[in-house]
Amino acid sequence: MTADHRTENAKLADIGVTGLAVMGSNLARNFASKGFVTAVHNRTSAKTRALIEQHGGDGEFIASETTADFVASLAVPRKIIIMVKAGAPTDAVIDELSALLEPGDILVDGGNSQFLDTRRREETAREKGIHFVGSGISGGEEGALLGPSIMPGGSAQAYESLGPILEKISAHVDGVPCCTHVGTDGAGHFVKMIHNGIEYADMQLIAEAYQLLRTAAGLTPVEIADVFAEWNTGELESFLVEITAQVLRQVDAETGSPLVDVILDAAGQKGTGTWTVQTALNLGVPVSGIAEAVFARGLSSAAHQRAGAQKIGLPGPSSPWVVEDKDAFIEQVRLALYASKLVAYAQGFDVIAAGAKEYGWDIDNGAMARIWRGGCIIRAVFLNRITEAFDEDASLLSLLFAPYFTEVMTRAQDAWRAVVAGSALSGIATPGFSSSLAYYDGLRAERLPASVIQGQRDFFGAHTYKRVDKEGTFHTLWSGDKSEVEAS
Amino acid sequence: MTADHRTENAKLADIGVTGLAVMGSNLARNFASKGFVTAVHNRTSAKTRALIEQHGGDGEFIASETTADFVASLAVPRKIIIMVKAGAPTDAVIDELSALLEPGDILVDGGNSQFLDTRRREETAREKGIHFVGSGISGGEEGALLGPSIMPGGSAQAYESLGPILEKISAHVDGVPCCTHVGTDGAGHFVKMIHNGIEYADMQLIAEAYQLLRTAAGLTPVEIADVFAEWNTGELESFLVEITAQVLRQVDAETGSPLVDVILDAAGQKGTGTWTVQTALNLGVPVSGIAEAVFARGLSSAAHQRAGAQKIGLPGPSSPWVVEDKDAFIEQVRLALYASKLVAYAQGFDVIAAGAKEYGWDIDNGAMARIWRGGCIIRAVFLNRITEAFDEDASLLSLLFAPYFTEVMTRAQDAWRAVVAGSALSGIATPGFSSSLAYYDGLRAERLPASVIQGQRDFFGAHTYKRVDKEGTFHTLWSGDKSEVEAS
Repeated sequence: MTADHRTENAKLADIGVTGLAVMGSNLARNFASKGFVTAVHNRTSAKTRALIEQHGGDGEFIASETTADFVASLAVPRKIIIMVKAGAPTDAVIDELSALLEPGDILVDGGNSQFLDTRRREETAREKGIHFVGSGISGGEEGALLGPSIMPGGSAQAYESLGPILEKISAHVDGVPCCTHVGTDGAGHFVKMIHNGIEYADMQLIAEAYQLLRTAAGLTPVEIADVFAEWNTGELESFLVEITAQVLRQVDAETGSPLVDVILDAAGQKGTGTWTVQTALNLGVPVSGIAEAVFARGLSSAAHQRAGAQKIGLPGPSSPWVVEDKDAFIEQVRLALYASKLVAYAQGFDVIAAGAKEYGWDIDNGAMARIWRGGCIIRAVFLNRITEAFDEDASLLSLLFAPYFTEVMTRAQDAWRAVVAGSALSGIATPGFSSSLAYYDGLRAERLPASVIQGQRDFFGAHTYKRVDKEGTFHTLWSGDKSEVEAS
Repeated sequence: MTADHRTENAKLADIGVTGLAVMGSNLARNFASKGFVTAVHNRTSAKTRALIEQHGGDGEFIASETTADFVASLAVPRKIIIMVKAGAPTDAVIDELSALLEPGDILVDGGNSQFLDTRRREETAREKGIHFVGSGISGGEEGALLGPSIMPGGSAQAYESLGPILEKISAHVDGVPCCTHVGTDGAGHFVKMIHNGIEYADMQLIAEAYQLLRTAAGLTPVEIADVFAEWNTGELESFLVEITAQVLRQVDAETGSPLVDVILDAAGQKGTGTWTVQTALNLGVPVSGIAEAVFARGLSSAAHQRAGAQKIGLPGPSSPWVVEDKDAFIEQVRLALYASKLVAYAQGFDVIAAGAKEYGWDIDNGAMARIWRGGCIIRAVFLNRITEAFDEDASLLSLLFAPYFTEVMTRAQDAWRAVVAGSALSGIATPGFSSSLAYYDGLRAERLPASVIQGQRDFFGAHTYKRVDKEGTFHTLWSGDKSEVEAS
């Protein structure tokens, strides 16, 4: 459609985007508006045409109908961002483009790919001399257009030329771009996955806070919106808290009811929360806060079971929670939310550390918190504190050990405990709050009853155990004379 | 070593076992002692020789040094049980045997294989006309020798000739064998995996009960052993409760301390708990009780982090739990344990139902509880109640909806809530008890705050929502005029 662009002296594009659904289209507009000549392409050219017609004025675009023209429209080394559906469609586009690219070119997958797929693709591309960069991009449609948080993996060499372009279109906080080189091969998609897992936990915890304020304190959605708006002026200041206030303030035009009462209480999910938990399980890292959030969505969507429970009338406690001092209670819930949230973040960073170790990535945890400060869904003021904590001590064993966060725990724990205890007694499900507290108490326990489990395992399966007082591995002859033997 | 067995009129074996480590060796002895002529083989013949030398008198064995001789020693259709390490070693043995088998022969994998591997292997074998049966075998070394719980998958046709042999060597309860045809292809290994996941939860819950009795009630390990022994005479009667009493009663000869205080409190794991949670996540089924048990083991083994927490002195509650009436408290803990355990079983059976639907298996849940009554680690008297519940209503939406179990919840819930609340307030980690209670309260909630999550998702990602009052999918124009539109 723009064949005249391919004259001999035509300008070549700085960057290309293929896949022009909303995310890809907005990302292309973002590049163009920042002064980059942007090549655009889509499998069906109607979308390409629509983009140029509606937004051609945003900057310099070079539109192509064919993949060959698209590749030819780019300056070498070519930089192409693929914005298509994760899985087979992404593989198909990579295969098609790889055949046309030259060694040194950079192919970026900006979709929500599983990091193991990214590792496989990077390896294949590397054999052809092509730099393959799996990049997490967070912030939804608006972020893509105005400045997302970008988490690129791939080689350091690719980042040298690609990085400045991505940094320019990313969100900026205090003048610092929300984009950095995460690590090699799949590191970018890995960190994006963890970001999403934390997002699940964060949303679940906010939902539990809402439920407590609604049920135990008897506040209306609008009153709760005011509470969240107030919280958003303090240490909980974050995008998710801010939009929760807006969601709760919304009134359904049709019924006049709060929208939140009209929305079906069945939460959907698209898989990255599940991936996070599955990956953490492979790495042996407890991520109870994220797992409970994933399970809570699953339970909410188990319509038949929930209807069955209503029909049977599964028994609950005889008396509800009657909150006397609402202001004090609101503050308790705020502290419980903050403490639980810190646990979820601590667990998320534990998975990043374990993944880095497993896959040989050199990931700067503090930099991860830094690039999440803007553009993405979990953007929050307290991420500055996480960055500071890791800057202070890069080998921090747990986020909760940083002085700032230990202080939060110190002042939050009484309230947190009261909220979890009250929920249990009054029958309000707070799986996120309670599992985070249980994790915290397990982490700080001098002795855990895991010794009983080791005893059981040795009894029924001769799995052996270690002793607290000397090296070695031991087994008790449980079905014999019950003496202890050293295992080989 | 026994070439004379291969004379023309030699008896042929009813069944063969290859892989003569303890499990395989004990299983072979079990077959022989029940009157089956048993062919035995091991990669290195020393183990075969040792078996014959030490236990040749248990029954009729035919020992072979080579795989070819082993296969030739079996009556057709041949029935061979592979008892080697899961993964590549199992594949290697399958490949070697498959080349020597004829259509109609039955190859059984009795190891702890992942059910997807079993599905793959069954498909490959089927193309050659060989019946491949993935079979869960639970009960450890002692079970293998004296009667395990056996969970065979594979074709119904294979079960016709294989089943009677397996049923004969399995455990029996009230004259009923703890073995039945679970379902086609990987169904047997799938159910074995769930069995192990439930086992993780059961052990964790017992450990939490111990911790409460020790810490809050101040009982000694021997006193707690008495409590468990007493519990084992009632509705909690089970192998795990029984052996816990024995473990707690054990005194370390070297130090004179309770053994449980000498064992390092770092629980090991071999992967099936992790598989259960990962599989449940793929199927969208909440298994919080099992997941928390897996995470608790992971946390217990995070030595560096736990040491770090001790060093920092992560703050706990100011006052401990002072239990006044110990007998009343013991009964509360017993009820909390029972209720939490029922949730873990309910979640486990939910995964079996979801797996059956996903993979097209016709699994009789009641029969699964029946074959777990003996031989295996989770054997327990209350499994009879589960069998009855599913016999009464095969399409039961949740185990908790069966009248017997709803009654347990009704009388247990006050105590359960008190125990979880007390743990939270006094800083004792009870992730299993508290997550099970949160699941229960979530399941019975008329409204969940998932509507807030749907509102958030619609706000930042246009993920849309459904309404409680009409069909369709909707989206609010959050960054526009905030009107609602019907999504396509």
